[in-house]
Amino acid sequence: MIFSSVLAEHAPGYAEMGERMEELARQQPGFLGVESVRGADRHGITVSYWETRQDAARWKQVGEHLAAQAKGREEWYVEWRVRVCRVEEEWGTRAG
Amino acid sequence: MIFSSVLAEHAPGYAEMGERMEELARQQPGFLGVESVRGADRHGITVSYWETRQDAARWKQVGEHLAAQAKGREEWYVEWRVRVCRVEEEWGTRAG
Repeated sequence: MIFSSVLAEHAPGYAEMGERMEELARQQPGFLGVESVRGADRHGITVSYWETRQDAARWKQVGEHLAAQAKGREEWYVEWRVRVCRVEEEWGTRAG
Repeated sequence: MIFSSVLAEHAPGYAEMGERMEELARQQPGFLGVESVRGADRHGITVSYWETRQDAARWKQVGEHLAAQAKGREEWYVEWRVRVCRVEEEWGTRAG
């Protein structure tokens, strides 16, 4: 699941929420890993990896995560986009 | 295509190459878009979007891009990983 976003100039509470969501995601069934980067221009990409598409869908519906999504849409993000993807192939120097 | 990487502390020529590769990618058949973020901790994620998997595979084989990949593996990146994915669903506030 690829989540791209542009943060508002002022996004109070965003950093804490990000850390909390990562901690919470790690506890969900089917969680495989997460990579998250935010640049100086406030653009960010977070990719979370899940065993199955159902696991990813369930994570979207976790109560605390739903609240964070609502707050993100209403306050934190200027733009955002979610893409649900299936990994078909991968290679490189490390496991995700 | 998701490209995750960690840059070496010194990566001379990297920024110029990144710009050039983005410019070159935009000229390839099937190119849909690209999102690229590098954080202060040198972790980066670049996601490029292509019409077909073949278009993405062809981009990997473009000469100047092959040279950049080699230089990346040998000099610029401490870690890197490529994931070829199929976008199955997407939503949000903007087109990628």
